[in-house]
Amino acid sequence: MMLSALSLARSIEAGEFSPAHVIDLCADAVAKREHEVGAFVTLDVDRARRDAQIPGLKDNPLRGLPVALKDIFDTADMPTEYGSPIYAGYRPKADASLAALIRRTGGTLFGKTVTTQFAHIDPGKTRNPHNLAHTPGGSSSGSAAGVAAGFFPIATGSQTGGSVIRPASFCGVAGFKPSYRLLPTVGMKCMSWHLDTAGLFAASVADVAFAASVIGSRDLRVDGRTPSSPRIGVLRHQPWPAASDDMIAALDNVARAASAANARVRDIKLAPVLASAFRAHATIQSYEAARSLASEYERSKEMLAKGVLELVETGFTVTADAYDDARSVATQARRALNEAMTDIDVILSPSAPGAAPKGLGSTGSSTFNRLWTLMGTPCVNVPGLADPAGLPLGIQVIGRFGSDRATLEAALFVESLVARRA
Amino acid sequence: MMLSALSLARSIEAGEFSPAHVIDLCADAVAKREHEVGAFVTLDVDRARRDAQIPGLKDNPLRGLPVALKDIFDTADMPTEYGSPIYAGYRPKADASLAALIRRTGGTLFGKTVTTQFAHIDPGKTRNPHNLAHTPGGSSSGSAAGVAAGFFPIATGSQTGGSVIRPASFCGVAGFKPSYRLLPTVGMKCMSWHLDTAGLFAASVADVAFAASVIGSRDLRVDGRTPSSPRIGVLRHQPWPAASDDMIAALDNVARAASAANARVRDIKLAPVLASAFRAHATIQSYEAARSLASEYERSKEMLAKGVLELVETGFTVTADAYDDARSVATQARRALNEAMTDIDVILSPSAPGAAPKGLGSTGSSTFNRLWTLMGTPCVNVPGLADPAGLPLGIQVIGRFGSDRATLEAALFVESLVARRA
Repeated sequence: MMLSALSLARSIEAGEFSPAHVIDLCADAVAKREHEVGAFVTLDVDRARRDAQIPGLKDNPLRGLPVALKDIFDTADMPTEYGSPIYAGYRPKADASLAALIRRTGGTLFGKTVTTQFAHIDPGKTRNPHNLAHTPGGSSSGSAAGVAAGFFPIATGSQTGGSVIRPASFCGVAGFKPSYRLLPTVGMKCMSWHLDTAGLFAASVADVAFAASVIGSRDLRVDGRTPSSPRIGVLRHQPWPAASDDMIAALDNVARAASAANARVRDIKLAPVLASAFRAHATIQSYEAARSLASEYERSKEMLAKGVLELVETGFTVTADAYDDARSVATQARRALNEAMTDIDVILSPSAPGAAPKGLGSTGSSTFNRLWTLMGTPCVNVPGLADPAGLPLGIQVIGRFGSDRATLEAALFVESLVARRA
Repeated sequence: MMLSALSLARSIEAGEFSPAHVIDLCADAVAKREHEVGAFVTLDVDRARRDAQIPGLKDNPLRGLPVALKDIFDTADMPTEYGSPIYAGYRPKADASLAALIRRTGGTLFGKTVTTQFAHIDPGKTRNPHNLAHTPGGSSSGSAAGVAAGFFPIATGSQTGGSVIRPASFCGVAGFKPSYRLLPTVGMKCMSWHLDTAGLFAASVADVAFAASVIGSRDLRVDGRTPSSPRIGVLRHQPWPAASDDMIAALDNVARAASAANARVRDIKLAPVLASAFRAHATIQSYEAARSLASEYERSKEMLAKGVLELVETGFTVTADAYDDARSVATQARRALNEAMTDIDVILSPSAPGAAPKGLGSTGSSTFNRLWTLMGTPCVNVPGLADPAGLPLGIQVIGRFGSDRATLEAALFVESLVARRA
């Protein structure tokens, strides 16, 4: 049973219950399932309960709601380990900006959640609440799984490849990767400065829009609206391997439902430069990761997980020319994407190749996300669909850079179609 | 007497002396003048001497040369205080990327230099080596003053307003603010993520190009070349207060000398959108600073210096709409600047309103730098000129975004004119 941030906030506002009561709800869910889900690396419920009793907290925009932080965000009063033994027990001096803004807007920090090592591909302990034998996705594994398990109504994440949208898809929660740098990444352990994007998880599109609106101090809320029908471009063919049959069927169904609901729906194809940009992502990511993690590599190479080590070592082989070319391709691709979207509001695509794969040794593939991270466009994972085995299938709504509100509205529209089908 | 990084590197390469001998040269200069210049917050000469004796160090590109780090860059084995009492004695867990890359390319870390608080405007203890009653400029005060005083051949800096080019101008050293994000800013305390730019100081243009080339792993060297004559646009009128008469005369002289040396020189004016962008800088800086320093503000407001406190509090009053507008203006201005520079290689401008002002209560004005920081263009301070009182006057060479090598070559050309006059 997921916790709706908006419903909880309204209940607190109406005096129906207190912020501390919400902590109790969370603590109950954690007590029941954390032993098998493994969403947390740090949780001190008593502290959260004390924090939630600060007088006047409920008068702030976040109403004292508990927010879990991916353990890639610095916290001054909780350990911050980035999923790496190098940082065992590490206490940064300051909170990450996002953590400080959550406190400032009346949120209660509710523990740190499992991340893959340095938010790359080497998995942590978290399991998918929908089927414990399956990956929750990564790198924001604990944040997505924890929202799905009802452990907390809001969580932060970060995406460099597909680390927000993919785990949201696998865990069946709303995930929002805003436009590049809409939410501050200060104090978020850097892997790739042109890609790293802070994002959020919540139960539904309206919930995640509410959280982003408050924490980001900008008008992004979509609750209480009947979304207008957006102009949709459906991406059925892409320059990376196709999605599963179930996922393709889910996308087709949503596209048909959107048409039936009076949205203007047409198929789109990506210009060749966007295929080049998809490949350029890897070049930019590794070049920058080698530099971002140069200190860890030089000092503690032997403590790096296999995936991180390979990424850094690859990055040091990338020449400045190759990196510059990749960035230039990305710039051209952003322009081409802008032009391709002049008469559509959003692109509809699978959020991932399919449902969460079986096994915990990999967090799945980010092929359906990398290009959009590099383009810096807002992306929303719309939850609500599932495969025949009951595993979530997420639909990705991709907007124009800077049009975060319109993207969330379109995602709300898509979610309403999904809800009607469910 | 300044230390030339290139000359020292060549001498080490030729076996004329060892990296440890360079540390001795630096230590001698420090012993003579550090008590009055005050460039350092941390210096352990013995350690640097030990580090410089690592076998094989001289076979690396930086040849074991000592590099001082502005104390806005994290270091795992030296305190990192960002000029703030909040961080007294703070030891980060990792080195900043730039520090790690300096080590990796064979540099010897030689202490941490004075920064204004959080690299904003509240001064530290450093004095101008050319006249101790005058400011060295800021925020990279210790790095610029230390190169000028011959304490070290290379130092890092950062620029959000004018924090590299201005102190370089005031102290009479070469300063290089590369294109935005050419040098990694990971582990550099963030004030404003769209503005913060890592830069370098050295004795001359060729020295700073050498340092940037090695540390940045890209071909930026200009030594051993006769620079070709660039196409120069001279900026005599700008949408901010005029420079001093001495500075205007210096610029005129350089422009005339460039013409005489067969450069194509013409006056340019900035499009109105660039005047808007100059104003937008403040909006972007304060909005982002409020978020970057939210943790320090929320936890330790009473320990913030006046300038930082005002910046953060102003930033929290800036609306998301005003911020978005400012960013949009910046994007339009970058386009307009690109167009204005299609037939010129570089813009020539004063580096600062004039020579270093008297007094240590202010680090001077960044009006001649802010626009270029926001545009992300490479800028070089060319040293060598002075006012009648003997205080340095810097000429700023501003290139096209991404054309760092061409900008450094043009700066070398300008420097050759200045040297001929001197």
